[in-house]
Amino acid sequence: MANLIDGKKIAMDIQAELKIIVKDLKVVPCLAVVLVGENPASQVYVRSKARTANDLGVKSETIYLPKETTELELLEQISKLNNDDSVHAILIQLPLPAQIKEGTILNAVSPKKDVDGFHAVNRGKLLIGEDTFIPCTPAGVQEMLVRSHVEIPGKHVVIVGRSKIVGLPLATMFAQKHKHANATVTVCHTGTADLTAITLQADILIAAIGKPEAIKGSMVKEGAVVIDVGINRVEEPSSEKGYKLVGDVEFDETAKHASAISPVPGGVGPMTIAMLMKNTVKAAQNSMRQ
Amino acid sequence: MANLIDGKKIAMDIQAELKIIVKDLKVVPCLAVVLVGENPASQVYVRSKARTANDLGVKSETIYLPKETTELELLEQISKLNNDDSVHAILIQLPLPAQIKEGTILNAVSPKKDVDGFHAVNRGKLLIGEDTFIPCTPAGVQEMLVRSHVEIPGKHVVIVGRSKIVGLPLATMFAQKHKHANATVTVCHTGTADLTAITLQADILIAAIGKPEAIKGSMVKEGAVVIDVGINRVEEPSSEKGYKLVGDVEFDETAKHASAISPVPGGVGPMTIAMLMKNTVKAAQNSMRQ
Repeated sequence: MANLIDGKKIAMDIQAELKIIVKDLKVVPCLAVVLVGENPASQVYVRSKARTANDLGVKSETIYLPKETTELELLEQISKLNNDDSVHAILIQLPLPAQIKEGTILNAVSPKKDVDGFHAVNRGKLLIGEDTFIPCTPAGVQEMLVRSHVEIPGKHVVIVGRSKIVGLPLATMFAQKHKHANATVTVCHTGTADLTAITLQADILIAAIGKPEAIKGSMVKEGAVVIDVGINRVEEPSSEKGYKLVGDVEFDETAKHASAISPVPGGVGPMTIAMLMKNTVKAAQNSMRQ
Repeated sequence: MANLIDGKKIAMDIQAELKIIVKDLKVVPCLAVVLVGENPASQVYVRSKARTANDLGVKSETIYLPKETTELELLEQISKLNNDDSVHAILIQLPLPAQIKEGTILNAVSPKKDVDGFHAVNRGKLLIGEDTFIPCTPAGVQEMLVRSHVEIPGKHVVIVGRSKIVGLPLATMFAQKHKHANATVTVCHTGTADLTAITLQADILIAAIGKPEAIKGSMVKEGAVVIDVGINRVEEPSSEKGYKLVGDVEFDETAKHASAISPVPGGVGPMTIAMLMKNTVKAAQNSMRQ
């Protein structure tokens, strides 16, 4: 049976380390989160980020804006936060309402405070392997492999999914000449002709497609390491909520012959918040060096 | 025998098209090239760019700076060009002398005039498939495939080499959901464990490693399309110059069973200059829309 890559536990370890770093900092790191509208899932995420920040001694401030907010109003709010020296980190909770252009907003956040790593400048640095804020989910994927002592250099990493937030950043990260990368990297997606022929080659398989259990056990090589980025709701009438959360990977069948696998929930999800906190602390540290 | 993908011919076609576009423009596109120092290869490249520009009716201006130029002096020169409305496109010829930090300089060029596509903002847009100036060599590789009627969607594109200028941009370009992309993409490099096992899977193989004839015919699948980005000098005592240019691919052996292959010289090289001209014309067109 595969070892479990316990994202929840690893995230707790990282947060414990950050707590010590924060205590010793000469400044209290401050994360501003901007939430436009009343998307219930976004509200849950925002509260969870605030709670984690609080646990670590990181100050967090959530700015709630009505769903009718205009792009200009949001830009003004961001400008205020950019210019506020007590704010080290800014996160714009996505998705934004339809009247607001996401790209414009993400590129308005100061790259120095862009802890999501979504500003074009930071994405560009990521592409060529320069120091930057790595987007939290791909950063979490890499970190959980490293902390699980999975050897990455020389391995064949297959990424299923080419999203701007996960798949494409991961591809460039793992191809870099770096001690936690230096892998042969393949990116697959809906346009891939024979997906199984590719996934079966993966020493490390990363599923980030957003389709419940689309990666079957039979698509995974004996001994592979599997990271499941997907979080999908599927109906489960017998449960209290009426649904359950599953990943992009058929867990039980895969766990029989993979060497290690991350579960959903409790895998990449908690890592994403831990990496947001890590980026926030980094932003505060950087601010003191300027 | 493989069809020849004649980069020189395709580049001429593109330049003929650009000439007509330039004639109809309300503004004369102007490319400023900055050369620091006296690197002989750089001088050749700069002259070649100026000559091609001239042929197309594009104004070109080459600024020669002494090799002792400081970073600050170069930044001042770039600032002047950024602020000069008659200059639409700026190219900083690389490499720069050791006292000047390349990253600082490339990020000082206005992203709107950055026809090499080396500013972090433009690299970031490329990573997520937004409209930008695509770096000239990868743009040339894609364009020569398209104009040779090579079907890219659904194919397995294997890129050997992970440079900032060629390999990594190409990987993200070919993975995009786009009619000239949408390929399964693998990036290999010096850290790849079994290179031949990967290259043999390539429907489209792109060699960009900078090692003379490192890709042997036996590493290429029957019927594959091969693009050779390498330009290497190897000694050839019998020739007048004492050297000859070869690519990264063993041409003769590969041409026996590939379906198409680009030669060196006369392949990607001329395409790179054609794409620089295309980007320059685009910069001039964009300037009129602002």
